[in-house]
Amino acid sequence: MKPKLTIVKIGGNVIDDPASLSAFLEAFAGLEGSRILVHGGGKLATQLAEQMQVPQQMIDGRRITDEATLKIVTMVYAGYINKNIVAQLQAKGCAAMGLSGADGNLLLAHKRVNAMHNYGFAGDVDRVNDDLVKHLLGAGLSLVIAPITHDKQGQLLNTNADTIAQELAQALGADYTVQLIYCFEKNGVLKDVADENSCIALIDRACFKSLLEAGIIYEGMLPKLHNAFAALDKGVATVTIGKWDQLPELVKGISGTAIING
Amino acid sequence: MKPKLTIVKIGGNVIDDPASLSAFLEAFAGLEGSRILVHGGGKLATQLAEQMQVPQQMIDGRRITDEATLKIVTMVYAGYINKNIVAQLQAKGCAAMGLSGADGNLLLAHKRVNAMHNYGFAGDVDRVNDDLVKHLLGAGLSLVIAPITHDKQGQLLNTNADTIAQELAQALGADYTVQLIYCFEKNGVLKDVADENSCIALIDRACFKSLLEAGIIYEGMLPKLHNAFAALDKGVATVTIGKWDQLPELVKGISGTAIING
Repeated sequence: MKPKLTIVKIGGNVIDDPASLSAFLEAFAGLEGSRILVHGGGKLATQLAEQMQVPQQMIDGRRITDEATLKIVTMVYAGYINKNIVAQLQAKGCAAMGLSGADGNLLLAHKRVNAMHNYGFAGDVDRVNDDLVKHLLGAGLSLVIAPITHDKQGQLLNTNADTIAQELAQALGADYTVQLIYCFEKNGVLKDVADENSCIALIDRACFKSLLEAGIIYEGMLPKLHNAFAALDKGVATVTIGKWDQLPELVKGISGTAIING
Repeated sequence: MKPKLTIVKIGGNVIDDPASLSAFLEAFAGLEGSRILVHGGGKLATQLAEQMQVPQQMIDGRRITDEATLKIVTMVYAGYINKNIVAQLQAKGCAAMGLSGADGNLLLAHKRVNAMHNYGFAGDVDRVNDDLVKHLLGAGLSLVIAPITHDKQGQLLNTNADTIAQELAQALGADYTVQLIYCFEKNGVLKDVADENSCIALIDRACFKSLLEAGIIYEGMLPKLHNAFAALDKGVATVTIGKWDQLPELVKGISGTAIING
């Protein structure tokens, strides 16, 4: 039987609030087995950009990464947020190591080419160094990964943290039973976006099809679900979407929405 | 016979100039055997502090690290500089991994206590996780270390890069033949500080004593030499002080000042 690996992605809302972050990290430190935490941190980057008077431009929720912005996100994600998370996990007894995609060639990417928009120094992942990840997890380390990749030509690239979590999960599915958990603000995939109690516990392909046909799924959730099924196709055991303060319950499958094959 | 380990410390003047940094990293990537690079980066931190209007205070060349300054040095050292160096080394074929002292509990430190001055979040190193370093070097990785440590209570600390290089060298002396190289702007320890051609090739204890008695050694160099002999006492094979653009020659002992026991 393959060992279990839990890959958790957290976003800006948890990171921005010290009490929330501390509670989340306490739960993460308490998880059993091998773990990887992938973090964003967009709000703090936006704040620093304001302080440094570097105008920020977004297209469809993606940051346009000019040179000054790349410097900011590298400082905030790979420096400030990553190292503070690692230090806190260490204090909570979790042997954490923080890495960017450049470290050990962990995440090789290329600069995004898009005919419509110039995203600047935005990277799309080509390859995960799964040997390195296995080596570090095997040494008992928990990995904390900042959403910065590189192209092996010396260029750092800003990369979506959701995508990095998915790429890691897919690359490690052959060697681990991977549970990929997306933590956000809501209880999971909701039947009624206004009702936190309408969380759907389990979605398989048949269920997804019915939900789509009934037009029930909230628009913002659609790409997440499509990506989740794509991850399952590539060897990930379970994708779970749920609330950040429910991490142990999400791992156990008693909270949030579990997306599974079948 | 113990394997060779080269530990190199570079300071701000090399880091600040892209062409110099690239040339230095090319030489570092070309070194044989296990390697660790420890970097500072004070000038870039000072620039960012100015941009963010965070006043900086120095006592005897040491930065007073208040909370806003700790955030700045964490961003600049562990984020911007560390990840850019790693990405460049990767491009030059060197399998580099960048770490702070919090990562894998690499450098455990305590907040400096000083009756005269409050240095703020400045850390003095208590312990090097030499097992982790050996594990990573053994996997063929070259380490790039930012001068940020932690206290395992969740607090990051700003720590002198020269000291970190020395602590690493001392901790690894039992398992490696360590050459500790300090790169700076001058050719080495000069007999006449105004004459770059007056570099002393070799200093042992007897020679150091004579130089001290003759009052030849430039004042700023004295602590470096005292620290070098302290490192030799603790198992480091050679300490070399020399110019950053002479790295291969410093390793070979045909440039700079080699400080040795005897």
